[in-house]
Amino acid sequence: MTDGVTGARLRAMSYEELEALCERLRKKIIESVMANGGHLSSNLGMVELTVALHYVFDFPKDKVVFDVGHQCYAHKMLSGRMDGFARLRKRGGLSGFPKREESVFDCYDTGHAGTSVSAAMGLAKARDLSGSDHFVIAVIGDGSFNNGLVYEAINNLKPLRTNILVIINDNGMSISPTVGSMHDYLEMLAADSVEEKHRARRADIFEKFGLDYDGVYDGNDLRVMIERLTEIKEKLKTQSVILHVLTKKGKGYSFCEENPEATHGIGAKPALEYSEVLGRELCALAEKDGRITAVTAAMTGSLGLSGFFEKFPERAFDVGICEEHASVLCAALAAEGYKPYYAVYSTFLQRSFDEIVLDVCSQGLPVTFCIDRAGISGADGETHQGVFDLSFLSFIPGLTIAVPKDCNEFAEMLRFSGTFGAPLAIRYPRSCGHTFGSVMPVVPGSWEKLEGGDGRVVILACGERAVARAYAVRGLLEADGIAPALVNARFVKPLDESMLDGFGESLIVTMEDNVLAGGFGSLVTERFADRPGKLVKCFGYGDRFIEQGGIDELMDDYGLSPAEIAAYIRERI
Amino acid sequence: MTDGVTGARLRAMSYEELEALCERLRKKIIESVMANGGHLSSNLGMVELTVALHYVFDFPKDKVVFDVGHQCYAHKMLSGRMDGFARLRKRGGLSGFPKREESVFDCYDTGHAGTSVSAAMGLAKARDLSGSDHFVIAVIGDGSFNNGLVYEAINNLKPLRTNILVIINDNGMSISPTVGSMHDYLEMLAADSVEEKHRARRADIFEKFGLDYDGVYDGNDLRVMIERLTEIKEKLKTQSVILHVLTKKGKGYSFCEENPEATHGIGAKPALEYSEVLGRELCALAEKDGRITAVTAAMTGSLGLSGFFEKFPERAFDVGICEEHASVLCAALAAEGYKPYYAVYSTFLQRSFDEIVLDVCSQGLPVTFCIDRAGISGADGETHQGVFDLSFLSFIPGLTIAVPKDCNEFAEMLRFSGTFGAPLAIRYPRSCGHTFGSVMPVVPGSWEKLEGGDGRVVILACGERAVARAYAVRGLLEADGIAPALVNARFVKPLDESMLDGFGESLIVTMEDNVLAGGFGSLVTERFADRPGKLVKCFGYGDRFIEQGGIDELMDDYGLSPAEIAAYIRERI
Repeated sequence: MTDGVTGARLRAMSYEELEALCERLRKKIIESVMANGGHLSSNLGMVELTVALHYVFDFPKDKVVFDVGHQCYAHKMLSGRMDGFARLRKRGGLSGFPKREESVFDCYDTGHAGTSVSAAMGLAKARDLSGSDHFVIAVIGDGSFNNGLVYEAINNLKPLRTNILVIINDNGMSISPTVGSMHDYLEMLAADSVEEKHRARRADIFEKFGLDYDGVYDGNDLRVMIERLTEIKEKLKTQSVILHVLTKKGKGYSFCEENPEATHGIGAKPALEYSEVLGRELCALAEKDGRITAVTAAMTGSLGLSGFFEKFPERAFDVGICEEHASVLCAALAAEGYKPYYAVYSTFLQRSFDEIVLDVCSQGLPVTFCIDRAGISGADGETHQGVFDLSFLSFIPGLTIAVPKDCNEFAEMLRFSGTFGAPLAIRYPRSCGHTFGSVMPVVPGSWEKLEGGDGRVVILACGERAVARAYAVRGLLEADGIAPALVNARFVKPLDESMLDGFGESLIVTMEDNVLAGGFGSLVTERFADRPGKLVKCFGYGDRFIEQGGIDELMDDYGLSPAEIAAYIRERI
Repeated sequence: MTDGVTGARLRAMSYEELEALCERLRKKIIESVMANGGHLSSNLGMVELTVALHYVFDFPKDKVVFDVGHQCYAHKMLSGRMDGFARLRKRGGLSGFPKREESVFDCYDTGHAGTSVSAAMGLAKARDLSGSDHFVIAVIGDGSFNNGLVYEAINNLKPLRTNILVIINDNGMSISPTVGSMHDYLEMLAADSVEEKHRARRADIFEKFGLDYDGVYDGNDLRVMIERLTEIKEKLKTQSVILHVLTKKGKGYSFCEENPEATHGIGAKPALEYSEVLGRELCALAEKDGRITAVTAAMTGSLGLSGFFEKFPERAFDVGICEEHASVLCAALAAEGYKPYYAVYSTFLQRSFDEIVLDVCSQGLPVTFCIDRAGISGADGETHQGVFDLSFLSFIPGLTIAVPKDCNEFAEMLRFSGTFGAPLAIRYPRSCGHTFGSVMPVVPGSWEKLEGGDGRVVILACGERAVARAYAVRGLLEADGIAPALVNARFVKPLDESMLDGFGESLIVTMEDNVLAGGFGSLVTERFADRPGKLVKCFGYGDRFIEQGGIDELMDDYGLSPAEIAAYIRERI
């Protein structure tokens, strides 16, 4: 299919042909995700709804924003990108999320939860101001609907005086099962009969927010979806509408239907993940200490907390996709003497920035942030790389930042955290790839000398991946008779002042799995900037968003290539 | 009054005595705010409600969290801090916000909108886990109630299974008049008769979120407040309750009652504010360019946008206290070819961090952030200092960051922004204190050489305050025959590479009204770190939260003292 004609093409097809198309799309989704990884069950659930959208509306003139965006595969296939799925989520290949630069059919990039309604409102307001009359649609899951940003948007819908269609794709799941009163409310609505729903008598919340409620329907019933959307299309000329549909996550693939959380994201699973260590150690701490509590924003399993939630349900809180609330809840628990652990992906912690600064650190409360998927995360691309956390955390007063060299040190840091009385962040990647000898007792601001050198250059490596690559650099330099000393810089804050002062080497090289600006290296640099005779060279990622690709290839290309680092040292010595 | 006995003391008083107490408190509030500045009208409106809270509950055993916290004056006076009001908001004096370190009656520090419900839930959950039975209360204004964080919290109330009292202090105002569907809903409830409200028939939204609704009552009627709270206290043992009260902002002081926005915050008004320049230039741009749009999060007047909102209502959007939504709305408007300007205080922009990174910068959309109250803001203290923005913005790929040397350059930067097609941030303090000669044409990454020097040291000053202090440093060094060159480093990103490469001076000094870590200086430092013979010394704020005080005294004490900077240079040369 070529751009711009999908609607007309679909409308020329019979229902039988459309149903057959859905099956082809479903088959293609399973094939490509099995081959390249990606979001499986959510996309399988969206097939009929997406075909119906393309049947009723005229994209790209009309515009659809997919919340988070991980459910856009069928949309991409229907908008001229079928062939691209062979390289879905590969370097240079099709993105697993909507990308404006990829197609005119993707009108707004998404990746984090809750932006779709705000974005749709902005697109619609721009349409009104420019005197156009196309339709703007936001498709949002019941999980994302918990996010505060959605409330901020819907609360602003009436004052903004613009009309959009919000489709709640209700499959009862975030990555974990959806929790919260809004979810209960949606369930209550779903429990009613269609007739009652048509009168929308009980949908008063949405009505009060200026949304004409229509639901609840089977989102996997193509005929029903086409009928509803066709009728709603008329309504949209005069008002905003919320369409509530139920879809089956994993629809058409029994294994997914039965294991929605496990099949939310498909990818090669590492032999050992840091999250497993977190789960194990947190349970061990909680056995001994009743103050230990755990908080997650709808990602219990992927963060390794399932065991903790089973063993200590009264001290385990899944707050839904609400990263801001998660941090404030932790701060208040800590204010009353508890020891909260907030486990979260690096990229999603960005939503908590203000609360980390004021609620946690300004009050000096002992909340521990367990920051998973830190550094380059790979195939999900720009919106999911965890390469900014050291930069947005390192300047926050009162926050201690630890970066383990391996899983064993991570375990030791967690044991240490149990008695630590101040804000603490521990950042780590998903998989444990290496272990580096024994673990030194964990003391804030204490680094570990891993290898002695010839006194000319010392490498300060921050985190497992950097340490592994620093060893590679050492190996490459051996042939030249250069032996850099190697340090496990396991605390970004505080720095190991005494070790820094003790270096006889004139060249200090830093390596980190983070952007350079404001990162670990910049802290070291600032310290030596006005000292004659000390040169510091930092290696990390430059000033650009890092696209999808293999983790190692991206690390090589964007700043942590052992060959390039070795070459730099060789040239400087 | 001494700590811990306020409840008993008040309960021993007659209504007449209590009314007289309210008048004394009100008088004291007016006196101290007129003397020291602060939040006037919101505190005047809270007097009776606060006395009633202290009458019915037993603080500090029971706990109350004030949202934002600017309405806590009566609470402070009733909890043994009456005398402290002579030095309210002064250096070392009483804070204008709740402070745990100040009194056991302040159980949780606030300063930014929307945290109170989450915090109360955490305090309450800690109470439940520890087997205590005290009461936890959140007092939140109708303006803060628009914030997404409040929705995230209330949505999580039922799953958390804990009981709190949420008091909506409804005065119809944010800093600007409150907008949004939730506000309309509250107004609708307020329009009903008390009888109907008692049945709470129409308060279904709150009921669905697990809050038993009780309202609407006159929050300035002491007798009614005491009756309601006494009754609710019993209910709280088995459920969460929302009490909706109407208060008169500025109650008892006619000038405030008639001018609630103007008297929200009282302080010496500068002769000229950057916000006035913003309003003037934005209107001029909008006259010529229909794409110009303006967005504010409930602070139209204090950001200088009142004129724009009057002249271009269809292109002006007050979204309420919803900083996240504001940024996404701007991104979407820009995606459709509009030129949105989001004016916001530096400290409140922290709430938009994730959206600045992904919605605006990752998509490369031409949104202009006009960041007011940047740098030390003074008397409001830790929660309101704008000293982090350069650090949380400078590492974001694709963002251009401009810092004007004075109001004239700010105006020129705004004129430039009208044709700039990428994400742009312009940060500036509240008041225009100086002007420095003519303004060079604005080109990203171009700095301005203000003064030549003797070739030994060059000072790179970032922003008006730094430039002013750099001149002071120059003056101090004259006597020693030292003449530093002086540069107006008006772009933090990109840096003026060619000028940096051209410096013959061996010592480069940077000055900025921001924390050192991750700030302007650190970017300069990183650039020269591995170049022999170049020393860089950065002056800015160290690794601590900066308390309330006079702007100049705080700048002197925490890193930008001309005397200390001059002494450093003297010693180094």
